[in-house]
Amino acid sequence: MRFALVVEYDGTEFSGSQYQANARTVQGELERAAGTIFGDGLPRIRLASRTDAGVHAVGQVAAIDLDTRISTDKLRNAFNGNLPDDVRVHKVLMVPDVFDPRRDAIAREYRYVINDGATSSPIRRRNEYHVRSRLDAVLMDRAARHFEGVHDFASFAAATKEPVTTIRRVETAIVHRRDDERIVFDIRANAFVRQQIRRMVGVLIAVGRGNCALDEVAWLLSRPKRDSATQNAPPHGLTLMRVVYRAGSGIGEDPSSLRIGTEQSRASDDS
Amino acid sequence: MRFALVVEYDGTEFSGSQYQANARTVQGELERAAGTIFGDGLPRIRLASRTDAGVHAVGQVAAIDLDTRISTDKLRNAFNGNLPDDVRVHKVLMVPDVFDPRRDAIAREYRYVINDGATSSPIRRRNEYHVRSRLDAVLMDRAARHFEGVHDFASFAAATKEPVTTIRRVETAIVHRRDDERIVFDIRANAFVRQQIRRMVGVLIAVGRGNCALDEVAWLLSRPKRDSATQNAPPHGLTLMRVVYRAGSGIGEDPSSLRIGTEQSRASDDS
Repeated sequence: MRFALVVEYDGTEFSGSQYQANARTVQGELERAAGTIFGDGLPRIRLASRTDAGVHAVGQVAAIDLDTRISTDKLRNAFNGNLPDDVRVHKVLMVPDVFDPRRDAIAREYRYVINDGATSSPIRRRNEYHVRSRLDAVLMDRAARHFEGVHDFASFAAATKEPVTTIRRVETAIVHRRDDERIVFDIRANAFVRQQIRRMVGVLIAVGRGNCALDEVAWLLSRPKRDSATQNAPPHGLTLMRVVYRAGSGIGEDPSSLRIGTEQSRASDDS
Repeated sequence: MRFALVVEYDGTEFSGSQYQANARTVQGELERAAGTIFGDGLPRIRLASRTDAGVHAVGQVAAIDLDTRISTDKLRNAFNGNLPDDVRVHKVLMVPDVFDPRRDAIAREYRYVINDGATSSPIRRRNEYHVRSRLDAVLMDRAARHFEGVHDFASFAAATKEPVTTIRRVETAIVHRRDDERIVFDIRANAFVRQQIRRMVGVLIAVGRGNCALDEVAWLLSRPKRDSATQNAPPHGLTLMRVVYRAGSGIGEDPSSLRIGTEQSRASDDS
Protein backbone atom coordinates (compact mmCIF):
# COMPACT_ATOMS: atom_id res chain seq x y z
CA MET A 1 0.00 0.00 0.00
CA ARG A 2 1.42 3.40 -0.97
CA PHE A 3 0.91 6.40 1.30
CA ALA A 4 1.58 10.09 0.72
CA LEU A 5 2.60 12.20 3.71
CA VAL A 6 2.30 16.00 3.95
CA VAL A 7 5.30 17.07 5.99
CA GLU A 8 6.34 20.27 7.79
CA TYR A 9 9.86 20.85 9.07
CA ASP A 10 12.01 23.53 10.60
CA GLY A 11 15.10 23.20 8.41
CA THR A 12 17.45 24.91 10.86
CA GLU A 13 18.99 21.73 12.24
CA PHE A 14 18.74 19.63 9.07
CA SER A 15 21.45 19.00 6.46
CA GLY A 16 18.74 19.15 3.83
CA SER A 17 15.85 16.92 2.85
CA GLN A 18 17.64 14.01 1.12
CA TYR A 19 19.18 11.07 2.96
CA GLN A 20 22.89 11.28 3.81
CA ALA A 21 24.66 8.51 5.68
CA ASN A 22 26.40 10.77 8.19
CA ALA A 23 24.14 13.80 8.47
CA ARG A 24 20.75 14.59 9.94
CA THR A 25 18.20 14.85 7.12
CA VAL A 26 14.41 14.95 6.80
CA GLN A 27 14.31 11.75 4.77
CA GLY A 28 16.59 10.09 7.31
CA GLU A 29 14.33 11.05 10.23
CA LEU A 30 11.19 9.90 8.40
CA GLU A 31 12.81 6.57 7.51
CA ARG A 32 14.09 6.13 11.06
CA ALA A 33 10.55 6.73 12.42
CA ALA A 34 9.07 4.28 9.87
CA GLY A 35 11.68 1.69 10.86
CA THR A 36 10.82 2.13 14.54
CA ILE A 37 7.12 1.58 13.81
CA PHE A 38 7.28 -1.16 11.15
CA GLY A 39 10.74 -2.68 11.53
CA ASP A 40 13.75 -2.70 9.24
CA GLY A 41 13.86 -3.50 5.55
CA LEU A 42 11.36 -0.89 4.36
CA PRO A 43 11.73 0.64 0.90
CA ARG A 44 13.10 4.17 0.81
CA ILE A 45 10.86 7.18 1.35
CA ARG A 46 10.79 9.57 -1.60
CA LEU A 47 10.25 13.34 -1.37
CA ALA A 48 8.58 15.60 -3.91
CA SER A 49 10.97 18.55 -3.77
CA ARG A 50 14.61 18.50 -2.69
CA THR A 51 15.41 21.22 -0.14
CA ASP A 52 18.91 22.33 0.86
CA ALA A 53 20.32 22.46 4.37
CA GLY A 54 18.51 25.15 6.37
CA VAL A 55 15.49 25.43 4.04
CA HIS A 56 12.09 24.91 5.69
CA ALA A 57 8.87 23.29 4.47
CA VAL A 58 5.24 23.46 5.47
CA GLY A 59 3.90 21.38 2.56
CA GLN A 60 6.59 18.89 1.54
CA VAL A 61 5.11 15.63 0.18
CA ALA A 62 6.67 12.21 0.78
CA ALA A 63 5.66 8.75 -0.40
CA ILE A 64 6.25 5.39 1.29
CA ASP A 65 5.14 1.81 0.67
CA LEU A 66 3.90 0.04 3.78
CA ASP A 67 2.26 -3.34 4.23
CA THR A 68 -0.33 -2.19 6.78
CA ARG A 69 -4.04 -1.72 7.23
CA ILE A 70 -3.63 0.95 9.89
CA SER A 71 -5.87 4.02 9.38
CA THR A 72 -4.26 7.10 7.89
CA ASP A 73 -4.87 9.13 11.08
CA LYS A 74 -3.24 6.46 13.22
CA LEU A 75 -0.35 6.25 10.80
CA ARG A 76 0.12 10.02 11.06
CA ASN A 77 0.09 9.81 14.87
CA ALA A 78 2.52 6.90 14.85
CA PHE A 79 4.97 8.91 12.74
CA ASN A 80 4.62 11.98 14.95
CA GLY A 81 5.14 9.93 18.09
CA ASN A 82 8.49 8.80 16.70
CA LEU A 83 9.76 12.00 15.07
CA PRO A 84 11.84 14.79 16.65
CA ASP A 85 9.87 17.98 17.25
CA ASP A 86 11.33 19.83 14.24
CA VAL A 87 9.53 17.57 11.76
CA ARG A 88 5.86 16.57 11.72
CA VAL A 89 3.51 14.68 9.43
CA HIS A 90 0.34 16.75 9.05
CA LYS A 91 -1.63 14.37 6.88
CA VAL A 92 -1.46 10.86 5.49
CA LEU A 93 -3.30 9.89 2.31
CA MET A 94 -3.70 6.51 0.60
CA VAL A 95 -2.54 6.89 -3.00
CA PRO A 96 -2.39 4.65 -6.06
CA ASP A 97 0.62 2.32 -6.31
CA VAL A 98 1.84 4.31 -9.31
CA PHE A 99 1.93 7.62 -7.42
CA ASP A 100 5.35 9.29 -7.69
CA PRO A 101 5.66 12.36 -5.45
CA ARG A 102 8.34 13.93 -7.63
CA ARG A 103 7.33 13.12 -11.19
CA ASP A 104 3.59 13.53 -10.65
CA ALA A 105 3.96 17.00 -9.16
CA ILE A 106 2.93 19.66 -11.65
CA ALA A 107 4.18 22.62 -9.59
CA ARG A 108 6.12 23.64 -6.49
CA GLU A 109 5.49 26.84 -4.56
CA TYR A 110 8.21 28.44 -2.50
CA ARG A 111 8.32 31.60 -0.40
CA TYR A 112 11.37 33.66 0.54
CA VAL A 113 11.03 36.27 3.32
CA ILE A 114 13.41 39.23 3.58
CA ASN A 115 13.49 41.58 6.58
CA ASP A 116 14.80 45.00 5.56
CA GLY A 117 13.94 46.80 8.79
CA ALA A 118 16.58 48.62 10.81
CA THR A 119 16.81 45.66 13.20
CA SER A 120 16.51 41.91 12.81
CA SER A 121 13.69 40.10 14.62
CA PRO A 122 14.79 37.64 17.35
CA ILE A 123 11.49 35.78 17.17
CA ARG A 124 11.49 35.42 13.38
CA ARG A 125 15.22 35.16 12.87
CA ARG A 126 15.18 31.49 11.84
CA ASN A 127 12.65 32.12 9.06
CA GLU A 128 13.64 35.38 7.40
CA TYR A 129 16.82 36.91 6.02
CA HIS A 130 17.70 40.29 7.52
CA VAL A 131 19.45 42.69 5.14
CA ARG A 132 21.08 45.91 6.28
CA SER A 133 19.79 48.22 3.59
CA ARG A 134 16.30 49.33 2.70
CA LEU A 135 15.04 47.65 -0.49
CA ASP A 136 12.75 48.92 -3.27
CA ALA A 137 10.09 46.19 -3.36
CA VAL A 138 8.33 47.69 -6.39
CA LEU A 139 11.51 47.50 -8.44
CA MET A 140 12.14 43.99 -7.16
CA ASP A 141 8.67 42.93 -8.30
CA ARG A 142 9.34 44.32 -11.78
CA ALA A 143 12.57 42.30 -11.86
CA ALA A 144 10.81 39.16 -10.61
CA ARG A 145 8.30 39.33 -13.47
CA HIS A 146 11.24 38.71 -15.85
CA PHE A 147 11.52 35.22 -14.36
CA GLU A 148 8.00 34.26 -15.44
CA GLY A 149 7.68 32.02 -18.49
CA VAL A 150 9.81 29.24 -19.94
CA HIS A 151 13.51 30.09 -19.65
CA ASP A 152 16.89 28.43 -19.49
CA PHE A 153 17.86 29.16 -15.87
CA ALA A 154 21.48 28.07 -16.25
CA SER A 155 22.66 31.47 -14.97
CA PHE A 156 20.97 30.64 -11.66
CA ALA A 157 22.37 27.12 -11.45
CA ALA A 158 25.51 25.99 -9.63
CA ALA A 159 28.69 25.66 -11.67
CA THR A 160 28.67 21.85 -11.67
CA LYS A 161 27.81 20.81 -15.19
CA GLU A 162 25.55 17.84 -14.70
CA PRO A 163 24.28 16.78 -18.13
CA VAL A 164 20.75 17.96 -17.38
CA THR A 165 18.57 20.63 -18.85
CA THR A 166 18.24 23.88 -16.93
CA ILE A 167 15.04 24.88 -18.73
CA ARG A 168 12.12 25.40 -16.38
CA ARG A 169 8.66 26.99 -16.54
CA VAL A 170 8.05 29.66 -13.90
CA GLU A 171 4.31 30.25 -13.60
CA THR A 172 4.39 33.17 -11.18
CA ALA A 173 7.16 35.19 -9.53
CA ILE A 174 5.88 37.99 -7.35
CA VAL A 175 7.53 40.34 -4.85
CA HIS A 176 5.41 42.32 -2.42
CA ARG A 177 6.02 44.32 0.71
CA ARG A 178 4.12 42.65 3.54
CA ASP A 179 4.74 45.42 6.05
CA ASP A 180 7.24 48.15 6.85
CA GLU A 181 9.90 45.58 7.68
CA ARG A 182 9.21 42.62 5.44
CA ILE A 183 9.35 41.74 1.76
CA VAL A 184 7.98 38.44 0.47
CA PHE A 185 8.99 36.67 -2.76
CA ASP A 186 6.51 34.01 -3.91
CA ILE A 187 7.45 31.76 -6.80
CA ARG A 188 5.65 28.87 -8.44
CA ALA A 189 7.24 26.73 -11.14
CA ASN A 190 6.99 23.24 -12.60
CA ALA A 191 10.39 22.59 -11.00
CA PHE A 192 13.61 24.39 -10.05
CA VAL A 193 17.28 23.86 -10.73
CA ARG A 194 19.47 23.53 -7.66
CA GLN A 195 19.95 26.85 -5.79
CA GLN A 196 17.76 28.63 -8.37
CA ILE A 197 15.51 30.43 -5.91
CA ARG A 198 18.25 31.56 -3.55
CA ARG A 199 20.30 32.89 -6.50
CA MET A 200 17.20 34.66 -7.85
CA VAL A 201 16.75 36.26 -4.43
CA GLY A 202 20.39 37.33 -4.50
CA VAL A 203 19.70 39.14 -7.78
CA LEU A 204 16.43 40.61 -6.50
CA ILE A 205 18.16 42.03 -3.43
CA ALA A 206 20.81 43.62 -5.66
CA VAL A 207 17.99 45.15 -7.72
CA GLY A 208 16.24 46.35 -4.57
CA ARG A 209 19.44 48.07 -3.45
CA GLY A 210 19.89 49.74 -6.83
CA ASN A 211 22.99 47.67 -7.58
CA CYS A 212 21.55 45.72 -10.50
CA ALA A 213 19.54 47.09 -13.42
CA LEU A 214 16.47 45.36 -14.82
CA ASP A 215 18.39 44.93 -18.07
CA GLU A 216 20.92 42.79 -16.28
CA VAL A 217 18.17 40.51 -15.02
CA ALA A 218 16.87 40.09 -18.57
CA TRP A 219 20.44 39.48 -19.71
CA LEU A 220 20.94 36.62 -17.20
CA LEU A 221 17.91 34.91 -18.75
CA SER A 222 18.61 35.65 -22.42
CA ARG A 223 22.25 34.57 -22.21
CA PRO A 224 22.16 31.51 -19.95
CA LYS A 225 25.58 30.66 -18.58
CA ARG A 226 26.18 28.46 -15.56
CA ASP A 227 26.90 30.22 -12.31
CA SER A 228 26.45 33.80 -13.62
CA ALA A 229 24.26 34.80 -10.67
CA THR A 230 26.74 34.15 -7.91
CA GLN A 231 24.97 35.84 -4.99
CA ASN A 232 23.25 33.04 -3.12
CA ALA A 233 20.81 34.28 -0.47
CA PRO A 234 20.99 32.23 2.76
CA PRO A 235 18.70 29.19 3.09
CA HIS A 236 16.85 30.13 6.27
CA GLY A 237 14.59 32.68 4.51
CA LEU A 238 13.22 30.00 2.17
CA THR A 239 10.20 27.75 2.75
CA LEU A 240 8.60 25.13 0.50
CA MET A 241 4.93 26.08 0.82
CA ARG A 242 3.25 23.31 -1.16
CA VAL A 243 3.50 20.77 -3.93
CA VAL A 244 0.70 20.70 -6.49
CA TYR A 245 -0.59 17.56 -8.25
CA ARG A 246 -2.88 17.13 -11.20
CA ALA A 247 -6.42 16.02 -10.52
CA GLY A 248 -5.92 12.54 -12.01
CA SER A 249 -2.94 11.58 -9.84
CA GLY A 250 -5.07 10.01 -7.15
CA ILE A 251 -3.75 12.39 -4.50
CA GLY A 252 -6.00 15.30 -5.37
CA GLU A 253 -4.88 18.53 -6.89
CA ASP A 254 -3.53 19.95 -3.68
CA PRO A 255 -2.81 17.71 -0.71
CA SER A 256 -1.09 20.56 1.12
CA SER A 257 -4.21 22.67 1.07
CA LEU A 258 -5.27 20.56 4.01
CA ARG A 259 -2.67 22.49 5.99
CA ILE A 260 -5.41 24.98 6.59
CA GLY A 261 -3.68 26.98 9.27
CA THR A 262 -0.74 27.65 7.07
CA GLU A 263 -2.88 28.47 4.09
CA GLN A 264 -4.97 30.93 6.08
CA SER A 265 -1.88 32.50 7.56
CA ARG A 266 -0.63 32.99 4.06
CA ALA A 267 -3.87 34.57 3.00
CA SER A 268 -3.86 37.03 5.87
CA ASP A 269 -0.18 37.77 5.27
CA ASP A 270 -1.03 38.63 1.71
CA SER A 271 -3.90 40.93 2.55
CA MET B 1 20.33 61.41 30.04
CA ARG B 2 17.58 58.78 30.33
CA PHE B 3 16.75 56.59 27.36
CA ALA B 4 13.86 54.20 26.77
CA LEU B 5 14.50 51.10 24.66
CA VAL B 6 11.83 49.05 22.87
CA VAL B 7 13.09 45.47 23.05
CA GLU B 8 12.16 42.20 21.31
CA TYR B 9 13.40 38.83 22.52
CA ASP B 10 12.95 35.15 21.87
CA GLY B 11 12.52 33.94 25.44
CA THR B 12 13.41 30.31 24.68
CA GLU B 13 16.96 30.50 25.98
CA PHE B 14 16.40 33.09 28.72
CA SER B 15 15.81 32.47 32.41
CA GLY B 16 13.36 35.36 32.38
CA SER B 17 13.65 39.10 31.99
CA GLN B 18 15.07 40.12 35.40
CA TYR B 19 18.75 39.99 36.30
CA GLN B 20 20.01 36.88 38.08
CA ALA B 21 23.66 36.45 39.02
CA ASN B 22 24.06 32.93 37.63
CA ALA B 23 21.51 32.75 34.82
CA ARG B 24 21.08 34.17 31.35
CA THR B 25 18.47 36.97 31.49
CA VAL B 26 17.29 39.77 29.20
CA GLN B 27 18.28 42.46 31.70
CA GLY B 28 21.66 40.78 32.12
CA GLU B 29 22.33 40.77 28.36
CA LEU B 30 21.23 44.40 27.98
CA GLU B 31 23.46 45.48 30.88
CA ARG B 32 26.38 43.47 29.54
CA ALA B 33 25.99 45.17 26.13
CA ALA B 34 25.76 48.61 27.77
CA GLY B 35 28.88 47.83 29.78
CA THR B 36 30.76 46.81 26.64
CA ILE B 37 29.80 50.09 24.92
CA PHE B 38 30.11 52.55 27.82
CA GLY B 39 32.28 50.76 30.39
CA ASP B 40 31.50 49.46 33.84
CA GLY B 41 29.72 51.26 36.65
CA LEU B 42 26.47 52.01 34.84
CA PRO B 43 23.22 52.18 36.80
CA ARG B 44 20.91 49.19 36.40
CA ILE B 45 18.57 48.89 33.45
CA ARG B 46 14.90 48.69 34.46
CA LEU B 47 12.20 46.82 32.52
CA ALA B 48 8.52 47.72 32.26
CA SER B 49 7.04 44.22 32.61
CA ARG B 50 8.61 41.20 34.27
CA THR B 51 8.50 38.10 32.06
CA ASP B 52 9.17 34.53 33.25
CA ALA B 53 11.67 32.10 31.78
CA GLY B 54 10.60 31.12 28.27
CA VAL B 55 8.17 34.02 27.75
CA HIS B 56 8.80 36.17 24.66
CA ALA B 57 8.43 39.90 24.00
CA VAL B 58 8.10 42.06 20.93
CA GLY B 59 7.41 45.32 22.78
CA GLN B 60 9.18 45.18 26.14
CA VAL B 61 10.32 48.64 27.31
CA ALA B 62 13.57 49.26 29.21
CA ALA B 63 15.07 52.42 30.66
CA ILE B 64 18.74 53.27 31.18
CA ASP B 65 20.68 56.38 32.23
CA LEU B 66 23.69 57.12 30.04
CA ASP B 67 26.05 60.07 29.97
CA THR B 68 26.25 60.33 26.19
CA ARG B 69 25.30 62.58 23.31
CA ILE B 70 25.18 59.74 20.81
CA SER B 71 22.11 59.79 18.53
CA THR B 72 19.27 57.42 19.38
CA ASP B 73 19.72 55.49 16.10
CA LYS B 74 23.44 55.02 16.75
CA LEU B 75 22.70 53.95 20.30
CA ARG B 76 20.25 51.35 19.00
CA ASN B 77 22.85 50.05 16.54
CA ALA B 78 25.54 49.97 19.24
CA PHE B 79 23.29 47.85 21.44
CA ASN B 80 22.40 45.49 18.60
CA GLY B 81 26.04 45.09 17.64
CA ASN B 82 26.76 43.86 21.16
CA LEU B 83 23.68 41.72 21.84
CA PRO B 84 23.17 38.01 21.09
CA ASP B 85 20.78 37.36 18.20
CA ASP B 86 17.84 36.38 20.42
CA VAL B 87 17.44 39.93 21.78
CA ARG B 88 17.28 43.19 19.81
CA VAL B 89 16.62 46.85 20.53
CA HIS B 90 14.12 48.10 17.95
CA LYS B 91 13.98 51.70 19.01
CA VAL B 92 15.68 54.13 21.37
CA LEU B 93 13.87 57.23 22.65
CA MET B 94 15.13 60.11 24.78
CA VAL B 95 12.81 60.42 27.78
CA PRO B 96 12.48 62.77 30.76
CA ASP B 97 14.73 62.01 33.75
CA VAL B 98 11.63 61.14 35.78
CA PHE B 99 10.47 58.46 33.32
CA ASP B 100 9.91 55.13 35.07
CA PRO B 101 9.19 52.27 32.63
CA ARG B 102 7.27 50.24 35.20
CA ARG B 103 5.33 52.83 37.22
CA ASP B 104 4.51 55.08 34.28
CA ALA B 105 3.03 52.24 32.24
CA ILE B 106 -0.75 52.40 32.19
CA ALA B 107 -1.27 49.02 30.53
CA ARG B 108 0.44 45.85 29.36
CA GLU B 109 -0.79 43.73 26.44
CA TYR B 110 0.03 40.05 26.25
CA ARG B 111 -0.88 37.38 23.72
CA TYR B 112 -1.04 33.61 24.27
CA VAL B 113 -1.22 31.32 21.22
CA ILE B 114 -2.65 27.80 21.46
CA ASN B 115 -2.40 25.26 18.66
CA ASP B 116 -5.24 22.72 18.87
CA GLY B 117 -4.66 21.09 15.49
CA ALA B 118 -4.05 17.37 15.17
CA THR B 119 -0.30 17.99 14.85
CA SER B 120 2.11 20.51 16.33
CA SER B 121 3.92 22.90 14.01
CA PRO B 122 7.72 22.48 13.84
CA ILE B 123 8.19 26.02 12.54
CA ARG B 124 6.00 27.67 15.19
CA ARG B 125 6.73 25.28 18.03
CA ARG B 126 8.71 27.82 20.07
CA ASN B 127 5.86 30.34 20.05
CA GLU B 128 2.66 28.38 20.55
CA TYR B 129 1.41 25.72 22.94
CA HIS B 130 0.14 22.59 21.25
CA VAL B 131 -2.73 20.84 23.04
CA ARG B 132 -3.95 17.38 22.13
CA SER B 133 -7.68 18.01 22.19
CA ARG B 134 -9.88 20.24 20.10
CA LEU B 135 -11.02 23.34 22.03
CA ASP B 136 -14.26 25.31 21.92
CA ALA B 137 -12.97 28.85 21.28
CA VAL B 138 -16.42 30.43 21.57
CA LEU B 139 -16.87 29.02 25.06
CA MET B 140 -13.33 30.07 25.96
CA ASP B 141 -14.13 33.63 24.88
CA ARG B 142 -17.22 33.66 27.10
CA ALA B 143 -15.04 32.52 29.99
CA ALA B 144 -12.37 35.12 29.20
CA ARG B 145 -14.94 37.93 29.42
CA HIS B 146 -15.34 37.05 33.11
CA PHE B 147 -11.78 38.29 33.65
CA GLU B 148 -12.63 41.80 32.44
CA GLY B 149 -13.04 44.46 35.10
CA VAL B 150 -11.48 45.07 38.52
CA HIS B 151 -11.04 41.79 40.38
CA ASP B 152 -8.95 40.21 43.08
CA PHE B 153 -6.90 37.73 41.04
CA ALA B 154 -5.50 35.86 44.05
CA SER B 155 -6.86 32.58 42.68
CA PHE B 156 -4.51 33.01 39.72
CA ALA B 157 -1.48 33.93 41.83
CA ALA B 158 1.24 31.61 43.07
CA ALA B 159 0.89 30.27 46.61
CA THR B 160 3.65 32.49 48.04
CA LYS B 161 1.94 35.02 50.25
CA GLU B 162 3.85 38.19 49.55
CA PRO B 163 2.13 41.03 51.40
CA VAL B 164 0.93 42.62 48.18
CA THR B 165 -2.46 43.22 46.73
CA THR B 166 -3.65 40.88 44.00
CA ILE B 167 -6.29 43.31 42.75
CA ARG B 168 -5.84 44.25 39.10
CA ARG B 169 -7.90 45.91 36.38
CA VAL B 170 -8.27 43.82 33.21
CA GLU B 171 -9.39 46.07 30.37
CA THR B 172 -9.93 43.42 27.70
CA ALA B 173 -9.67 39.64 27.64
CA ILE B 174 -10.59 38.12 24.30
CA VAL B 175 -10.28 34.65 22.82
CA HIS B 176 -10.65 34.12 19.10
CA ARG B 177 -9.93 31.31 16.67
CA ARG B 178 -7.35 32.59 14.18
CA ASP B 179 -7.60 29.58 11.86
CA ASP B 180 -8.48 25.89 11.94
CA GLU B 181 -5.44 25.13 14.08
CA ARG B 182 -4.91 28.19 16.24
CA ILE B 183 -6.61 30.00 19.09
CA VAL B 184 -5.36 33.37 20.32
CA PHE B 185 -5.94 34.88 23.79
CA ASP B 186 -5.32 38.65 23.96
CA ILE B 187 -5.35 40.35 27.33
CA ARG B 188 -4.73 43.93 28.36
CA ALA B 189 -4.53 45.03 31.99
CA ASN B 190 -3.02 47.77 34.10
CA ALA B 191 -0.71 45.07 35.49
CA PHE B 192 -0.64 41.35 36.27
CA VAL B 193 0.17 39.23 39.29
CA ARG B 194 2.89 36.65 38.81
CA GLN B 195 1.80 33.70 36.60
CA GLN B 196 -1.65 35.25 36.22
CA ILE B 197 -1.90 34.92 32.44
CA ARG B 198 -0.56 31.38 32.24
CA ARG B 199 -2.95 30.26 35.00
CA MET B 200 -5.82 32.02 33.22
CA VAL B 201 -4.89 30.12 30.06
CA GLY B 202 -4.87 26.88 32.05
CA VAL B 203 -8.46 27.60 33.09
CA LEU B 204 -9.46 28.66 29.58
CA ILE B 205 -8.10 25.41 28.12
CA ALA B 206 -10.08 23.43 30.72
CA VAL B 207 -13.18 25.39 29.67
CA GLY B 208 -12.43 24.77 25.97
CA ARG B 209 -12.20 21.03 26.67
CA GLY B 210 -15.50 21.04 28.55
CA ASN B 211 -13.74 20.24 31.84
CA CYS B 212 -14.55 23.53 33.59
CA ALA B 213 -17.92 25.30 33.69
CA LEU B 214 -18.26 29.06 33.29
CA ASP B 215 -19.63 29.14 36.85
CA GLU B 216 -16.31 27.84 38.11
CA VAL B 217 -14.47 30.68 36.37
CA ALA B 218 -16.78 33.20 38.02
CA TRP B 219 -16.24 31.39 41.32
CA LEU B 220 -12.44 31.72 41.07
CA LEU B 221 -12.91 35.47 40.78
CA SER B 222 -15.67 35.94 43.36
CA ARG B 223 -13.89 33.84 46.01
CA PRO B 224 -10.24 34.81 45.61
CA LYS B 225 -7.94 32.29 47.26
CA ARG B 226 -4.24 31.95 46.50
CA ASP B 227 -3.25 29.18 44.11
CA SER B 228 -6.80 27.98 43.34
CA ALA B 229 -6.12 27.87 39.59
CA THR B 230 -3.26 25.38 39.62
CA GLN B 231 -3.03 24.59 35.90
CA ASN B 232 -0.17 26.74 34.62
CA ALA B 233 0.07 26.81 30.80
CA PRO B 234 3.69 26.62 29.58
CA PRO B 235 5.57 29.89 29.02
CA HIS B 236 6.51 29.49 25.36
CA GLY B 237 2.99 30.34 24.11
CA LEU B 238 3.10 33.76 25.79
CA THR B 239 4.40 37.03 24.31
CA LEU B 240 4.47 40.55 25.77
CA MET B 241 3.10 42.53 22.82
CA ARG B 242 3.43 46.08 24.08
CA VAL B 243 3.55 48.43 27.04
CA VAL B 244 1.29 51.48 26.95
CA TYR B 245 2.13 54.88 28.47
CA ARG B 246 0.01 57.91 29.10
CA ALA B 247 0.45 60.86 26.79
CA GLY B 248 2.09 63.06 29.44
CA SER B 249 4.89 60.65 30.30
CA GLY B 250 7.25 62.06 27.71
CA ILE B 251 7.56 58.74 25.91
CA GLY B 252 4.36 59.05 23.93
CA GLU B 253 1.29 56.97 24.43
CA ASP B 254 2.64 53.95 22.63
CA PRO B 255 6.37 53.58 21.99
CA SER B 256 5.91 50.02 20.82
CA SER B 257 3.59 51.04 18.03
CA LEU B 258 6.75 51.89 16.16
CA ARG B 259 7.26 48.14 15.80
CA ILE B 260 5.17 48.47 12.70
CA GLY B 261 5.84 45.03 11.31
CA THR B 262 4.65 43.42 14.46
CA GLU B 263 1.62 45.63 14.75
CA GLN B 264 0.59 44.98 11.17
CA SER B 265 1.12 41.27 11.59
CA ARG B 266 -1.19 41.42 14.55
CA ALA B 267 -3.76 43.34 12.59
CA SER B 268 -3.76 40.83 9.77
CA ASP B 269 -3.81 37.95 12.24
CA ASP B 270 -6.92 39.42 13.73
CA SER B 271 -8.69 39.91 10.44
